[in-house]
Amino acid sequence: MPTVRLDIEYVGSAFRGWARQPGERTVQNELEAALETILRRPVALTVAGRTDAGVHALGQVASFTVDEELPAALLRSVNAVLSDDVAVRSLESAADGFDARRDAVSRTYRYRLLVRPAPSPFEKARSLWWPTRLDEDVLHRCAAALPGVRDFTAFTPTETDHTRFKRNVSLAEWRREGEMLEFWIAADGFIHHMVRILVGTMLEMAAGRRDPAEFPGLLTGAPRERAGLTAPARGLCLMAVEYGE
Amino acid sequence: MPTVRLDIEYVGSAFRGWARQPGERTVQNELEAALETILRRPVALTVAGRTDAGVHALGQVASFTVDEELPAALLRSVNAVLSDDVAVRSLESAADGFDARRDAVSRTYRYRLLVRPAPSPFEKARSLWWPTRLDEDVLHRCAAALPGVRDFTAFTPTETDHTRFKRNVSLAEWRREGEMLEFWIAADGFIHHMVRILVGTMLEMAAGRRDPAEFPGLLTGAPRERAGLTAPARGLCLMAVEYGE
Repeated sequence: MPTVRLDIEYVGSAFRGWARQPGERTVQNELEAALETILRRPVALTVAGRTDAGVHALGQVASFTVDEELPAALLRSVNAVLSDDVAVRSLESAADGFDARRDAVSRTYRYRLLVRPAPSPFEKARSLWWPTRLDEDVLHRCAAALPGVRDFTAFTPTETDHTRFKRNVSLAEWRREGEMLEFWIAADGFIHHMVRILVGTMLEMAAGRRDPAEFPGLLTGAPRERAGLTAPARGLCLMAVEYGE
Repeated sequence: MPTVRLDIEYVGSAFRGWARQPGERTVQNELEAALETILRRPVALTVAGRTDAGVHALGQVASFTVDEELPAALLRSVNAVLSDDVAVRSLESAADGFDARRDAVSRTYRYRLLVRPAPSPFEKARSLWWPTRLDEDVLHRCAAALPGVRDFTAFTPTETDHTRFKRNVSLAEWRREGEMLEFWIAADGFIHHMVRILVGTMLEMAAGRRDPAEFPGLLTGAPRERAGLTAPARGLCLMAVEYGE
């Protein structure tokens, strides 16, 4: 079946996350409604990363099947219909049978901290402001323990729909960009709240409130209560989805 | 008289500009009110660049005189009182008699364009989206005509309070940062709407709607009607103010 691939950006602040929910403002609701308005038929999107309420995306990917000729100016029409906090960056025919979720081999997330004494009006909605002490060496040491196949049971809520808790992390590092300190992580998949609890735990260790030596042990199937707080959604952004071939 | 220097950032979208205006939401109103709440006495700020409604700042500077001991945590207190779209980045004792406006020797502004087919939810409030044709060589050639002492009569509204229209431009260049195309300009001073009309004019030339060969002639005291449209405020940001010594 011919399919279309959409690359999507959104500011998550005013959305109840990606996934369709009746009566809630979600990204999937808005996008499907926009496509349905233009194509005049039902549209069901498949998505690479189901982001939570408040989480942003610069590199979200979704797909849907088509059996019609698409209008020439579909990209422009969709963006004209969508609200300002979501945009389709590109919209292209994909290989027959392409499925944005099933075919994804890796996702990359970024978590941003603004590290300085004053808050920032520009970064408020998309970073966590951190005006107090932070030992960056501790952050780097924690991140170094992540690559490889790890068990993230400690990094997701105890009540869970997940049945597998191991994920293969291919990249995990903290990067300095001026006053911004960014945690980048790529893996074959993520479980619910995984990045936010990883960041919350590393921050508690870097702030001296928790022993960093415990971090590697948390990656072997420890219970949730041994990890730290869940960092706020506003610092998190889905940056990219990688596909084989 | 001892003075205090404030370095200030604001998202201009929801402000009627910098300058105090009764009954309007302005940055000066908000900042003076915040300082007055904490210091419990009237405060009158002097500012380096009186930005218009909708214009942003990352490097605004203001000052006020003090004859009291300042509270130790004044920076934190002021930011706690201020709304989220304005922040004091630093607050320090300055030389006796320091005046943020009179002592400034140069101001630097940036105007941002997002050049791509799709709009951006993240950049919407702080850039001008430009999805259509743009000849960047034309932009570079125009900018190259700016440095030096020029007469900007064509680049400010005809009805004006200004009496001098010459300004000394020390830097003027377009820079590419990925999908962002940024115009940077520094001068000893700016007249009302100067950067926005410069940008609007250059964009009309780069879009092929106006002859770029006319640009240098506009800098010799031509009338307003020979220049182009005023670019929207949301792309403009005061980046820095330079002081001698």
